[in-house]
Amino acid sequence: MSQNRQIILKQRPQGAIREADFAVREAAVPLLEPGQFLVQNSHFSLDAGFRKWMNEGADDNYLTAMPLDAPVQSIVLGRVVESHHSSYPADTLVLGRSAWESYSVFSDADFVQKLAVDSSFPLHEYLATLGPTGLTAYFGLLDIGRPKAGETVLVSAAGGAVGSVVGQIAKILGCRTVGIASSAEKCLWLKEQLGYDATINHQAPEGLEPQLRRELPEGFDIYFDNVGGRMLDLALLHMKERARVVLCGAISEYDKTGEHTGIHHLWEFITKRAMAAGFMFSDYVEEYPAAIQQMAAWIGQGKLKSVVEIYQGIEATPRAFCDMMEGRNRGKCIVRL
Amino acid sequence: MSQNRQIILKQRPQGAIREADFAVREAAVPLLEPGQFLVQNSHFSLDAGFRKWMNEGADDNYLTAMPLDAPVQSIVLGRVVESHHSSYPADTLVLGRSAWESYSVFSDADFVQKLAVDSSFPLHEYLATLGPTGLTAYFGLLDIGRPKAGETVLVSAAGGAVGSVVGQIAKILGCRTVGIASSAEKCLWLKEQLGYDATINHQAPEGLEPQLRRELPEGFDIYFDNVGGRMLDLALLHMKERARVVLCGAISEYDKTGEHTGIHHLWEFITKRAMAAGFMFSDYVEEYPAAIQQMAAWIGQGKLKSVVEIYQGIEATPRAFCDMMEGRNRGKCIVRL
Repeated sequence: MSQNRQIILKQRPQGAIREADFAVREAAVPLLEPGQFLVQNSHFSLDAGFRKWMNEGADDNYLTAMPLDAPVQSIVLGRVVESHHSSYPADTLVLGRSAWESYSVFSDADFVQKLAVDSSFPLHEYLATLGPTGLTAYFGLLDIGRPKAGETVLVSAAGGAVGSVVGQIAKILGCRTVGIASSAEKCLWLKEQLGYDATINHQAPEGLEPQLRRELPEGFDIYFDNVGGRMLDLALLHMKERARVVLCGAISEYDKTGEHTGIHHLWEFITKRAMAAGFMFSDYVEEYPAAIQQMAAWIGQGKLKSVVEIYQGIEATPRAFCDMMEGRNRGKCIVRL
Repeated sequence: MSQNRQIILKQRPQGAIREADFAVREAAVPLLEPGQFLVQNSHFSLDAGFRKWMNEGADDNYLTAMPLDAPVQSIVLGRVVESHHSSYPADTLVLGRSAWESYSVFSDADFVQKLAVDSSFPLHEYLATLGPTGLTAYFGLLDIGRPKAGETVLVSAAGGAVGSVVGQIAKILGCRTVGIASSAEKCLWLKEQLGYDATINHQAPEGLEPQLRRELPEGFDIYFDNVGGRMLDLALLHMKERARVVLCGAISEYDKTGEHTGIHHLWEFITKRAMAAGFMFSDYVEEYPAAIQQMAAWIGQGKLKSVVEIYQGIEATPRAFCDMMEGRNRGKCIVRL
C-alpha cells in the first residue's frame, strides 16, 4: 500500500485564508485496530463552514478547533479497502467526516454512513446535490422555510454550493427567487442558469440596501442565509409578516476569531411575527432516502441542475478551498483524488 | 359631561423617561360622528413596549411614532357612555387601543373589543392576567416556547407584567423556572411568591455570565425574553439543543433612538438547531376564550397569582409609567381613573 498523503493545517489563518496556511505531507497508512476499517478516499467535499474551526479556540458544541499539524477535517467519500468491522466489508462505499488525506480510518464512533448509489449519477454527486450539500438545501428550505407557491425566497451566496440548490428547489415549488451574489457575472449566471427571478450584486457600488428595497418591494417570506453578518442584519429589514429566516451558514464571519458581527434588527422579529432557526442536515437522517429520491427525480426531469466544480488531485485542495472562500466557485466544490 | 382630561407627550424622552416628559391637559370631550362611540375609560394598561414609540422616528410596521402634544397611546379599558354604533350600545364594556385620557372615541377602524367579564374577578384583571398581558405570556410560552414538563425555562424581567405570569405558567406545566430580575429583594420575591426554582440578579457585582452558568448548568430549553440587548446575547450562549427563544420584548432597548444593541451569538442557533420567534398576542384572537378560561381556572385553583400594582387617578400615570420603566414595579402596572 502506498503512503498516506495528507493536507495539514500548518498555521492558523489570519483573516482571509491562504494556500500557505496548509502543507502537504506523507504519513504511514495506519494499522487497523479491531472495529476499525480503512477507507481510500476518492473525493473531498469542500465546505465553507469548516473554515470556522480552523481558528484558535473555535470550539463550540458542534466541533472543536482543528489541531495544527494534523490533516484538515472534511467530509470525504471513499471505498473501504481493508476492514476489521463486519458492517463495513472491503469495497463498501462510504461517506464520512474525516480529513484531507488519501486514506482514513473509521470506526463506529465516527460520523460515517454507507452509500447506496444509483449508477446513473457520477459518484461526486453524492457529495453534492444528492449528498450533504443538497440535503442541507432541501431540509433547510422545506422544514425551516416551509415555502408556499407564490412566496418570495431570498437566498444569499445564491450561486454557492447550498444556495444554488435552494434557489432551484424554491423555483420548482413555485416561489419567486431572489439571489444575492458577489459579481454582475454571477448574477447573470444565476438568472440564466439557475432560474432566479431577480438578483442582487452585493459588491455593486450602489450597495446592498437599495437593491434589497428594489428587488423585494413587498419583502421576503423566506431568507435562506448562508452569509450572516451585515448582510443578514440588512435583510431583516425586509421581512414580510410571518417570515422565516433559515440560518444555514455565516461565511462572512468565518475569518473572524473574535465575536461575530452584531445583528441589530431582531426587533423586526417581534413586529413581523417572524422566526429564525438553525438546523443541520444530519438531524434528518431518517428522511434522507425520500429527499435523495426527490432530488434525483428533479435532476432526471431536468428541473434541477447540479452545479459542481471539480478540482483534480489532493494537492489542489488548498487552492480549491481558498478559491471557494473567495467566492470564485459556482456551485459545489469537490476535490477528486 | 365633564372635560376630557388627558396625559400628553410634551417632549421626546432623552434616554431614560422622566415624568417631566408628560403633561396633563384638559380638552373638550369630542362630538361623535356616525359609526363612532364614546368610552369613559376606567383603567389604563401600562406597557413598556409603548415606550419605544415615544421616540422620534420610531415608526415601524406595527405602530408609528407617537405625536407630540397628543395623548399618550395606551391600551385602555372602559365603558361606552354614548354611541352611534349599533354593536357598541351604551354601557358596553370594552378594551381597546386608545390613549391616556378620560374619554376615548372609537370606531370599527380601531383596535377595540367587547369584554365579557366574570364578576368574580376585579375589572382590572382584564388588563392583567386575563387580558393582553396574560395572553402575551400564555401564547408566547405555549405556542412559541412549547414547553414540556421537565424542561428549563429562563425568563427575563421575571417579576414584570408578562414575566410574572410566564414563570408561573411554566411551573404549572412542570418546568424548572429560572428568573432574571434587577435586585436581590426581587429575586427573593420571585422564589417565595412566584415559585421560581432559581433566580439571577443581573445587577449583582459578579455579573450575569457566572450566574447564568451556575443556574443553567445544562442550559435552557426556553428563553422567554422581555429584555433584549446584551442580556439576550449572553443568554444565547446557554441554549440547549433545540432551544426556543420567545422574542416578546426588548425593554433594555426602548430608551435608544439609534440601532438596537448588536446580538453576536446567532451562530449558536445553527450548532444548537435552535429557533427564535416573535409574536403578538393579538394573532391568537380566536383562542382568547380558551386561554382566559384556563388562566381563570388556574387563578381560582390558587395555582396562578395575579400580581398587579394599581396607581390611583389619571395624574398618577406619568409616575406609574416611569416607575415601571425603572423596574420598580412587581407584576402588572395599571392606572385606575
